Amino acid sequence: MASNGKMVKDITAMDEDFAKWYTDIVKKAELIEYTSVKGCMVIRPYGYAIWENMQRILDGMFKETGHENVCMPMFIPESLLQKEKDHVEGFAPEVAWVTHGGSEKLEERLCVRPTSETLFCEHYANIIHSHRDLPKLYNQWVSVVRWEKTTRPFLRSREFLWQEGHTIHATANEAIEETERMLNVYADFCENYLAMPVIKGKKTESDKFAGAVSTYAIEALMHDGKALQAGTSHYFGDGFAKAFSIQYTNKENKQEYPHQTSWGVTTRLIGAIIMTHGDDNGLVLPPAVAPTQLVIIPIASHKPGVIEKAEELEARIKNICRVKTDKSDQSPGWKFAEYEMKGVPLRLEIGPKDIENNQCVIVRRDNREKYFVSLDELERKIPELLAEVHKGLYEKALSNRENRTYACTSIEEIKKVLAEKGDGFIKAMWCEDEACEDKVKEETGAGSRCMPLDQEFISDKCVCCGKPAKKLVYWGKAY
Amino acid sequence: MASNGKMVKDITAMDEDFAKWYTDIVKKAELIEYTSVKGCMVIRPYGYAIWENMQRILDGMFKETGHENVCMPMFIPESLLQKEKDHVEGFAPEVAWVTHGGSEKLEERLCVRPTSETLFCEHYANIIHSHRDLPKLYNQWVSVVRWEKTTRPFLRSREFLWQEGHTIHATANEAIEETERMLNVYADFCENYLAMPVIKGKKTESDKFAGAVSTYAIEALMHDGKALQAGTSHYFGDGFAKAFSIQYTNKENKQEYPHQTSWGVTTRLIGAIIMTHGDDNGLVLPPAVAPTQLVIIPIASHKPGVIEKAEELEARIKNICRVKTDKSDQSPGWKFAEYEMKGVPLRLEIGPKDIENNQCVIVRRDNREKYFVSLDELERKIPELLAEVHKGLYEKALSNRENRTYACTSIEEIKKVLAEKGDGFIKAMWCEDEACEDKVKEETGAGSRCMPLDQEFISDKCVCCGKPAKKLVYWGKAY
Repeated sequence: MASNGKMVKDITAMDEDFAKWYTDIVKKAELIEYTSVKGCMVIRPYGYAIWENMQRILDGMFKETGHENVCMPMFIPESLLQKEKDHVEGFAPEVAWVTHGGSEKLEERLCVRPTSETLFCEHYANIIHSHRDLPKLYNQWVSVVRWEKTTRPFLRSREFLWQEGHTIHATANEAIEETERMLNVYADFCENYLAMPVIKGKKTESDKFAGAVSTYAIEALMHDGKALQAGTSHYFGDGFAKAFSIQYTNKENKQEYPHQTSWGVTTRLIGAIIMTHGDDNGLVLPPAVAPTQLVIIPIASHKPGVIEKAEELEARIKNICRVKTDKSDQSPGWKFAEYEMKGVPLRLEIGPKDIENNQCVIVRRDNREKYFVSLDELERKIPELLAEVHKGLYEKALSNRENRTYACTSIEEIKKVLAEKGDGFIKAMWCEDEACEDKVKEETGAGSRCMPLDQEFISDKCVCCGKPAKKLVYWGKAY
Repeated sequence: MASNGKMVKDITAMDEDFAKWYTDIVKKAELIEYTSVKGCMVIRPYGYAIWENMQRILDGMFKETGHENVCMPMFIPESLLQKEKDHVEGFAPEVAWVTHGGSEKLEERLCVRPTSETLFCEHYANIIHSHRDLPKLYNQWVSVVRWEKTTRPFLRSREFLWQEGHTIHATANEAIEETERMLNVYADFCENYLAMPVIKGKKTESDKFAGAVSTYAIEALMHDGKALQAGTSHYFGDGFAKAFSIQYTNKENKQEYPHQTSWGVTTRLIGAIIMTHGDDNGLVLPPAVAPTQLVIIPIASHKPGVIEKAEELEARIKNICRVKTDKSDQSPGWKFAEYEMKGVPLRLEIGPKDIENNQCVIVRRDNREKYFVSLDELERKIPELLAEVHKGLYEKALSNRENRTYACTSIEEIKKVLAEKGDGFIKAMWCEDEACEDKVKEETGAGSRCMPLDQEFISDKCVCCGKPAKKLVYWGKAY
């Protein structure tokens, strides 16, 4: 049996060292490879195919909701970045600066976009004149750069892939509706395609996007009890419009400032599915985005008819799922471990005895349940099992989150819970005073994640100062 | 009738000023908008939708031929760019340099990728060890940056979108086959989807890609008689492998250098279809990549039943073509001009009289031919007309090229032809001496475009020096 460094024994156990387990998986499942540029990575074919599936689904959802794709330049002149005060303060410290073109020094530095609000605003100022020009519902699929100090594949890298939606509307209400609509699209995507339950909420003032009036986010809980922000949707009011002099003539022929939004998800979602669904055998992929949904493994493939049968099955089912057959000369045991590592949702085993009995064995990756399936029933059974894998993953993730969500009414209680039970979501009331928010984080390590849209009542007092509480907040340590 | 700056009268006539005509079209058909970053543009929804269609078709062709998508970083450390001598000489003068991350000066400058050979090589050195690891057939869809002095939308911009294929093979033969295969894929794409005939050929030594053993290209002739390089495919031999120490163990357990290729097409193809098919009324889009293939224009839409009928037709035909209905309150005349400007291949007019007669009018964009079509026959007639538009465009472009291709046997003859007949392809024999190649260009303005794979015999003497000729070359002025 060949050892190519991919055997299960080579992965660190999750409970032993979750961070190491994570890094082992991204490397050994061949999702990424490091490069000589610190904080930048190669996304390898298997990792990129997951992203392509995510893109295809999300892009369909964006177009379904009326959005169009565009492409802005990757460079932002320094003076343009500086036009909106809060925005530049938020981003300038972490941008990469281009200072030379060839051997010539540029008259003005250009930053590599960390996000593209300023470019969209400049464009909107050029093309929006009348109420007839509104709304514009734009999106782009690009990479952006943020010069982070510490980096981790997918979770925090200096360059990452994302989509950024940028929309502009005649009224504040329309823009707020858009902000909420896209938050719902993201939640729908995470839950129904990535099998990852999320909390929809609003960020606190201190945690808003630079330049936003309000920031909404979806927050997920990873296997280790740490929170991960999986997507954000921002409402800008007319602040950017004023900074960039974007005005339109309304129906009464008066000049008005339009209202804007932006929203984005990134390749971080790949990190999220690793840490939500993965186990000690490797990656576990939600069927909707798995590059291969079912792998066929011929058993005793030297016996006559086995390879032929495997090929026949592949040809038969390739229209109902993404399938591949591993006909290599590795042993079945090696192949089982390999495709478990790669998180393929279903494995189909077919050998001489199965062929005799007109059946095959199908094994689910998520819970290793084994099914003897008649070859006459594959077309019915495979989609059913893929749906069950999705459901199983979702329920397991949801129950992990529920088991790790704790309602607390004092800082002491938060500390005790985190010490005794480990990381998780803390639900606690808050008075909306930033000092209390900071103190909770300082004393417990758990920062405010979001104020959930579905507000609950736990107590009438702020978990920190005891004064009247205004909001339920989810707190947690975060990626 | 509203005038929003898009009326036909606003386009410069092609014959008056082809360059101005081109710029008018990219702006007025809303393909691009300029930005404050010189040489960088916004690709607007209509322009980007054309690129998305190109991407979808090409990506399918790449996957069909066994390629996988990956994503490399956008930054290349200076020392990495310098590893292959010819390559760095070719690209260093025109790269954008990142020197600072946030407020800190970088220890080593990074360039924004002008092309990614060096990054792929670094990656290959990491992941290729054995003959079992070969071949790797990779591609990526990204943008690249080249700091050009003079720029034109789509044709030559500082940032442009492209795909770059990078493959690595055990043997030289396999790599050469791949180089040729991808040249054929490009030619197939240009001819069968963009309706643009191309000459497949090899570049001369002086015109090769920096670091390549040989460069193949497809060359198209634009409406004005200038040539445009529409795609390239390079064979690298083992030069990069040696420079980057990429080695594999062959079946005999010996260390060998693998052989590489790269190939790419860019958003330049959008410029190519504008200049191949466009006319004085605007853009003319090949049906395969047109964002809208058929636009429905209701006539006398205030009359009862007209809008309803238009909507009914749209619902009926939306599964056979990309269709939209313009229900705005602009006049039919305005709409005709608007969708001619946008190059929509077919226009369907439906008014009260048509409804009475159970028919509609369909007008082809390419030759303005008008058809009365029974509403019962739309499902048959529309695909047929789309195919005819494609064929019509291809034949018109081919006949333009044939009418503008001239066989010459002396420099004097080239000068005379170009002076009397205007720009075009010159077919002339060449001795393979670079001095003669330079002299032809210097004296006639026509550079060598390529040595066509289908070689013809025109004379046995070099068009320049009169010594024995070795190759037929296509010469021309180029974009």
